[in-house]
Amino acid sequence: MFLMIASSAPTFPHRHLLGIEGLKASDILGLLDLAEEAVTVSRQVEKKRSVLRGRTQINLFFEASTRTQSSFEIAGKRLGADVMNMAVSSSSIKKGETLLDTAATLNAMRPDLIVVRHHAAGAVHLLARKVDCSVINAGDGEHEHPTQALLDALTIRRNKGRIEGLVVAICGDVLHSRVARSNILLLQTLGARVRVVAPSTLLPAGIDRFGVEVHRNMREGLKDADIVMMLRLQRERMKGAFVPSVKEYFRYFGLDAEKLSWAKSDALVMHPGPMNRGVEIDSEVADSAQSLIREQVEMGVAVRMAVLEALARHLPNG
Amino acid sequence: MFLMIASSAPTFPHRHLLGIEGLKASDILGLLDLAEEAVTVSRQVEKKRSVLRGRTQINLFFEASTRTQSSFEIAGKRLGADVMNMAVSSSSIKKGETLLDTAATLNAMRPDLIVVRHHAAGAVHLLARKVDCSVINAGDGEHEHPTQALLDALTIRRNKGRIEGLVVAICGDVLHSRVARSNILLLQTLGARVRVVAPSTLLPAGIDRFGVEVHRNMREGLKDADIVMMLRLQRERMKGAFVPSVKEYFRYFGLDAEKLSWAKSDALVMHPGPMNRGVEIDSEVADSAQSLIREQVEMGVAVRMAVLEALARHLPNG
Amino acid sequence: MFLMIASSAPTFPHRHLLGIEGLKASDILGLLDLAEEAVTVSRQVEKKRSVLRGRTQINLFFEASTRTQSSFEIAGKRLGADVMNMAVSSSSIKKGETLLDTAATLNAMRPDLIVVRHHAAGAVHLLARKVDCSVINAGDGEHEHPTQALLDALTIRRNKGRIEGLVVAICGDVLHSRVARSNILLLQTLGARVRVVAPSTLLPAGIDRFGVEVHRNMREGLKDADIVMMLRLQRERMKGAFVPSVKEYFRYFGLDAEKLSWAKSDALVMHPGPMNRGVEIDSEVADSAQSLIREQVEMGVAVRMAVLEALARHLPNG
Repeated sequence: MFLMIASSAPTFPHRHLLGIEGLKASDILGLLDLAEEAVTVSRQVEKKRSVLRGRTQINLFFEASTRTQSSFEIAGKRLGADVMNMAVSSSSIKKGETLLDTAATLNAMRPDLIVVRHHAAGAVHLLARKVDCSVINAGDGEHEHPTQALLDALTIRRNKGRIEGLVVAICGDVLHSRVARSNILLLQTLGARVRVVAPSTLLPAGIDRFGVEVHRNMREGLKDADIVMMLRLQRERMKGAFVPSVKEYFRYFGLDAEKLSWAKSDALVMHPGPMNRGVEIDSEVADSAQSLIREQVEMGVAVRMAVLEALARHLPNG
Repeated sequence: MFLMIASSAPTFPHRHLLGIEGLKASDILGLLDLAEEAVTVSRQVEKKRSVLRGRTQINLFFEASTRTQSSFEIAGKRLGADVMNMAVSSSSIKKGETLLDTAATLNAMRPDLIVVRHHAAGAVHLLARKVDCSVINAGDGEHEHPTQALLDALTIRRNKGRIEGLVVAICGDVLHSRVARSNILLLQTLGARVRVVAPSTLLPAGIDRFGVEVHRNMREGLKDADIVMMLRLQRERMKGAFVPSVKEYFRYFGLDAEKLSWAKSDALVMHPGPMNRGVEIDSEVADSAQSLIREQVEMGVAVRMAVLEALARHLPNG
Repeated sequence: MFLMIASSAPTFPHRHLLGIEGLKASDILGLLDLAEEAVTVSRQVEKKRSVLRGRTQINLFFEASTRTQSSFEIAGKRLGADVMNMAVSSSSIKKGETLLDTAATLNAMRPDLIVVRHHAAGAVHLLARKVDCSVINAGDGEHEHPTQALLDALTIRRNKGRIEGLVVAICGDVLHSRVARSNILLLQTLGARVRVVAPSTLLPAGIDRFGVEVHRNMREGLKDADIVMMLRLQRERMKGAFVPSVKEYFRYFGLDAEKLSWAKSDALVMHPGPMNRGVEIDSEVADSAQSLIREQVEMGVAVRMAVLEALARHLPNG
C-alpha cells in the first residue's frame, strides 16, 4: 500500500508531530527524504496515491490560514485520504464547547489524522493527549509550526546541497514567531549556525537559552549569511505596547537589495508568507533570482505529504 | 455494489428521511442493524466503501453545526460519495433567493442525496417535495432531528441490549428541542417508557398528546430511570420571555452526581452535544463511566452511513 | 483515460478559458458537443469519471457564489479531480497579500486547473499570466462570465435545435452584467441576432460597438424574439448614482405574462439566477412551461465538466 516508501526507509518513531522539539536528526532527515519523493509525485499529471485511501483526515483550524490549510488539504487528497475541513471559529466554539469536548467529539468520529492550528501555545499538545489518532501541529500560538521548519529545511537542502555548517540569519519579528522557534530548533539539530536579527523589542526574553547568536542590526546579522530568512511582522499579535511604524521598521529591518548585499554573494532569501511587501521585505528582493519563496510553498505540500504518510505508519495495520 | 448490505436485509420503504414520525418499528430496526455494520467499517483502517461511488451528496446547512454536518460529511465520504457542503448563510440567501429556488437549483445539479438543516420547522418537508432525489432532515427548527434519535437508540441498544421496556427520562429544555421530539417518537415506537422532566416553562403546550409521563422535578422524574437523557439548554432559541438563570437552572435541573443517584444504579447518561457544562450537566457526570456521550458521537457517523445507504437503494438502479 | 471524448473530437486550442472573446465558432461548438455527453453522465446513477483523476482543481472565489462554485465543484468531482475550495475573503486577503502573491502561492502547489471569480474586471487574465496551469474565468467584475454564456447556448440549442438565426433579447441591467457581455459575444459568433433591452441608465456607454440592436422599451425589444433572456438587477453593484425603484423597474422592465406575449408565441425565457422575483421577473413567468431557468442550472454542470475536460487535454500527457 505504501507506494512512496522504499521498504528500507526508516520508520518515523512518533505517533504525533507536535513540534520540532524532541526530534532527532535522523527523524528529520527521514521526513525530508520522504518529502523528496512527494515532490516528484506532485510534479506528475496523475498525482494520486493510495497511501491514505480509506483514512479520514480532519483539518481543525481555530485560526484562518489560506496556505497552510490548503497545503495540508492538497497533501491529504493526493495521498488518497478523505479530508474534512473544520473552521472552528464559525461553529461550536460559539456554542461554548471546550477544546477538549471538540477533541473528544472528533475523536469519536474515528479519524486517523487530525491537523490542528490553534491560537494558544500548547493547545495542540493538550488535544493530542485526548485522542487516539495522530495529531499534526499546524501552528499553535507563538510556540511551534513544525511543518514550516521542515519545508524550510527541505528548500535549503535542495538549493545548498546541505544544511550542516550553513549560516542562517532569521530576521524580524522573532518575538511573535512560531516559525522562528521551530526553525531554530530544526536548523541547530541539523548542524546549521543560526542567528536571530531583530530590534530588542521583537526578541523574546529567553532567546539566549536557544544557543543562537543574537544581533540587533541587520548589517552585523547578515554578514557571511548563506540564508536570509525573513519573518512576517505579526502586527495582529501585538497587543498595545509596541507596534512599530512600518516605515521605520522597513528602514532598519526590511530586507532590500542593499541589506541583502551585506550577506554572502550567493545568499538565498526565504519568507514563510504571506509577505507584507514593503514592510519586512522589498518586492525587488522577494521576486529576485535569490528568492526561494515560491519554492517554499511547493515544498510545503511535499513535506506535509511526507508527514501524513510517516504518521500513517503508526496506524494499526499501517 | 452494496457491499454493506446482506442481500436479505429489509429495504427501507421511504425515499426520504424527514422525521421519525411515520416510521414503523421495522424501519427503525432495519436502520439500526445496518448502522451496526457501519460501526465495524469505521473502526477499520481502510474505511472506504463504494456503496455511494459516483453519487452526489449535498449538505445544505442553513444553520451552522459542527458535529452534525461533519458526521454526515464523513459518513458520505466513507461510502464513496462525492460530498459538497453548502453553508447557505454565506451565500445566495443574501441575494434574496427563496428556499424553493435554492431547492430547484440544487435539484437541477442532479444530486442523489440532500442533507438539510434549516431553522424553520417544516422547511425540510417543503424542500423534499420540490426535488427528485432523497432528502434527509438534519434538524428543522423545533420539529425533528431523526438521525439524532436513531443514534441515541443505537447507543442505548448497544449498552442495554434492548430498548423495549426501558425507562427513559428526557430532561431539560423540551420546549425548544427537536431532539426530544424525535426521541419521544422513536423510543415509544420501540416500546420504551418515556418521561419528560422539565420546569413548566420549558414544556411545550401539547406535551400530553405524546403519551409521555410528565415530571416537573428531577427526583420524581429520574426514579427508576434506565437512561437519563439530558438536553442542551437552548438559550439561543429563547426570545425575550423566559430565560432562566444558569445558576438556578443547574440547581434544580442540572444533572450532577446526586441527582443521578436518584435513577437506577446502572442508569446511563446521554447528551446530544454540544454540552453546556455546569448548566444542564455537571462535568463529573459527563465524563463518568456512566456517560455514553462520546459513544453517541461515534454512533452518529454509523447511523448516518446507514441512512445514506438505505436511501440510496431508492435511486434508480440503486 | 478520456472516457468522454470520442477520439475524433476536435481539440480545444486554448490553455485557458478567460472569456468568449477570441473563441471561434468551432471552439464553442466543440465545447457544446462535449457538454452534451456530460449531460448524459450526470443523469446516470454512477456519475463518476476518471478523466481528471489525480488532477488538482482549485476553486478560488474572491466573491461568494452558491451556484457557480457548486457547479464547478460538482463538475470537477464527477470527473474525478481533487477539488479544493478557497473562499478568499476569509483568508490571506485580510493579511494584505496581493492577488499576484496568492496566484504564485497557489501555482507553487502544482494545481492543474484554477477556477477564479474576482470582483475586478481583468483580474483573472492577470492571474492566468502568472501561473503554469489552466485558468477558467468564473466571472470577473463586469467583464466576462464565459461558462454562463456557454450554458445558455447549450440550453438554447437543446430547446430550439439551433442558435443561428434566432432573435435573442437580453433584457435589464446590461450595464453591470458580465453575463450580458459574454452572451452577446457568443451568440453573435454562432449567428444569432442579439438585442439588448434596457433603460438608458442601465446601458453601457460603448454598447453600439457590439453590433447589437438597442431598445429602450420592452414592447419593441421583445417583438419577434425567440429567446427572452432576463438579467439580474445587480443592485449590489450600483454605487450611489442610479438605483432604480424596484416597483418602477418591474413596471417597465420586469418580465410578466403580458410583456412576454409581445415576443414570439413560442418564445422561451431564461435567467442566470439567482432571481429577484417581482423585480426583473414575475414568478408566473419564471415557473411557466416557457421557462428554461431550471434547465440552465443543469446545463451549467455539464458545460463546466466539458470545459474542465477540454482544458485538461492541454496538460502534459493530458
